[in-house]
Amino acid sequence: MTIDRVYAAREVAAELGIDVLVVTPGSDLRHLCGYSAHAMERLTALVVPRRAEPFLVVPRLEAPMVTASPAGELGLEVLAWDETDDPFALVARTATARLGSAPARVAVGSRTWAEHALGVQRALPGSALELAAPVLDRLRMVKTPAEVAELAAAGAAIDRVHARMGEWLRVGRTEAEVGADIAAAILAEGHVGVDFTIVGSGPNGASPHHELSGRVVADGDLVVVDIGGETATGYRSDCTRTYAVGRAPGAEVGEWYGVLQEAQRAATAAVRPGVPAESIDAAAREVIAGAGWGEYFIHRTGHGIGLDTHEAPYIVAGNELPLTPGMAFSVEPGIYLPGRCGARIEDIVVCTEDGVTTLNDGPRDLVVLAG
Amino acid sequence: MTIDRVYAAREVAAELGIDVLVVTPGSDLRHLCGYSAHAMERLTALVVPRRAEPFLVVPRLEAPMVTASPAGELGLEVLAWDETDDPFALVARTATARLGSAPARVAVGSRTWAEHALGVQRALPGSALELAAPVLDRLRMVKTPAEVAELAAAGAAIDRVHARMGEWLRVGRTEAEVGADIAAAILAEGHVGVDFTIVGSGPNGASPHHELSGRVVADGDLVVVDIGGETATGYRSDCTRTYAVGRAPGAEVGEWYGVLQEAQRAATAAVRPGVPAESIDAAAREVIAGAGWGEYFIHRTGHGIGLDTHEAPYIVAGNELPLTPGMAFSVEPGIYLPGRCGARIEDIVVCTEDGVTTLNDGPRDLVVLAG
Repeated sequence: MTIDRVYAAREVAAELGIDVLVVTPGSDLRHLCGYSAHAMERLTALVVPRRAEPFLVVPRLEAPMVTASPAGELGLEVLAWDETDDPFALVARTATARLGSAPARVAVGSRTWAEHALGVQRALPGSALELAAPVLDRLRMVKTPAEVAELAAAGAAIDRVHARMGEWLRVGRTEAEVGADIAAAILAEGHVGVDFTIVGSGPNGASPHHELSGRVVADGDLVVVDIGGETATGYRSDCTRTYAVGRAPGAEVGEWYGVLQEAQRAATAAVRPGVPAESIDAAAREVIAGAGWGEYFIHRTGHGIGLDTHEAPYIVAGNELPLTPGMAFSVEPGIYLPGRCGARIEDIVVCTEDGVTTLNDGPRDLVVLAG
Repeated sequence: MTIDRVYAAREVAAELGIDVLVVTPGSDLRHLCGYSAHAMERLTALVVPRRAEPFLVVPRLEAPMVTASPAGELGLEVLAWDETDDPFALVARTATARLGSAPARVAVGSRTWAEHALGVQRALPGSALELAAPVLDRLRMVKTPAEVAELAAAGAAIDRVHARMGEWLRVGRTEAEVGADIAAAILAEGHVGVDFTIVGSGPNGASPHHELSGRVVADGDLVVVDIGGETATGYRSDCTRTYAVGRAPGAEVGEWYGVLQEAQRAATAAVRPGVPAESIDAAAREVIAGAGWGEYFIHRTGHGIGLDTHEAPYIVAGNELPLTPGMAFSVEPGIYLPGRCGARIEDIVVCTEDGVTTLNDGPRDLVVLAG
């Protein structure tokens, strides 16, 4: 870890006319300086004033943790505050001193808690508050080769979990039981944390974000399994496969599942530098709508992934951002038939110099499990 | 679950002159309406306009999840938005229509993400943004008997984990290994999630929020073990004990550990209705400072607990809030000797009509484990 990312953020912020960045715990902070603190009510913040030295404000009881983290090697000044101090006043006073005058534009992280964002604003009453996303998304969205390697390792780990699905996803077991086994496997197969385990069996598969329930998997169910976790370096996995349990489904399912496969393939194939993010969504949507299933594809086609499971760029109509090499995101069209069942196919892909690389490798066919 | 809590929040908000509450996923939302959605970039919000009907704004793909949750029984209108809609405009338009005019004061949850808080503000350009904490803290801070029972169950569950500490905390094992075993036991003993596992051995015990490291536990180490999790109903456990591994420590440790025990006892005994929260902090601090160890007690004495591990009321100098029956919080003084070791004793307590109940029962002596 070096301080380069902090300086890069300062440079982009200056270019956008932002006077000071205030970055609180979460993936923005981890990305910039390697400190992966828990979000909590006590303020921890990396403060980056324009044309001046950045500093960290931390509760005194956590100062040893900063020193012990990768951020401890960056030479950042650490200002510790005591339990009865006002940390927002400390941020405002120090930033103003370093800038030479009070900041006019203060930008906070997208996921900074309101109590911290408004605390900073209250301490700088002349300032206007805005999001730091235009700075941080620009930096985080394009992955370095090392980051792509981390995402590839996460993808391979979650592929190993999917490859074992037949061990757990069986007739007579509840979604919750299947989910508990998957969660254990996510940890066993190279993650340090479980982010989500969606097991949408039968009609539950028609609810895209359904997680787990007491529903018992029945013979002939379609089951949407969307799972992901966090690796030791903080990068995320996220992969969906749809299974048929016990027996192959009827011809009608086969027909629209084939449409879904074609949509996922077409969207992936559309990825290349220079095309707008929304065109990937359109590629999937055209196939599904063209086959008459458009009204059942009720969500965007994908989201960026990195230190967060969902981050920029979003693959959605209206997002005209041109793709560039290094952007990593999901391609995950779905078809959902309310009250009956659903299916989704999701891979993480990376835009390359001449096209696309896919970071998940498992079969995209409807895999029939013995049940 | 009934809609009573939503109406209670509306009443307090009106009393404070707030025109509309906007509550996003997290414990505020779960407390008010029983919906425990994941926080994510897509806006989910319970919107409570003064003197008008509250409503839920949710991404269309998650609408079935609301219906399936306890919130589905409350009769709240659910406004679903599509991926290319502007959910902030939907909030602003609907709230304004129900209020009869644009709101002047809009309050958001303390932990609402900045992107959502500022999104609401942008859609209501004439409004002033503030925190809903004065409303929600007042409602959440005082636990009902049913909530106290949930916290007591969580406390008993974490006590069972501490009672088994000798199985894992042994000479030659790393903190990380011990922490992994503790995490498994937290789940096995009645929690659905692990919130934190602090194993601060030897000098690491002097860093109050140190989590886990590769340090190997040595014979004679003092080890601070601060652990907690989430139960199925969302209530939290949080309990610290300090152990001596392999052999009893020398007389000097015994002396200041005795001071710490006395401080924890005195602070707990000071809890009763009507006394200010800060007096509980003072009771612990006076004992420790009186014995000459004041400079080594570097944090507040406690924090409220409920659906969040840290919530109001905070037990800290400057907080003059009078305690009332039903308030639940930690009493956790510590003594930290930089470079050497630390100790902390933490119980969750509840203010009762005539004093205090303690929700953790394990021994507060320095327990010597075989090693």
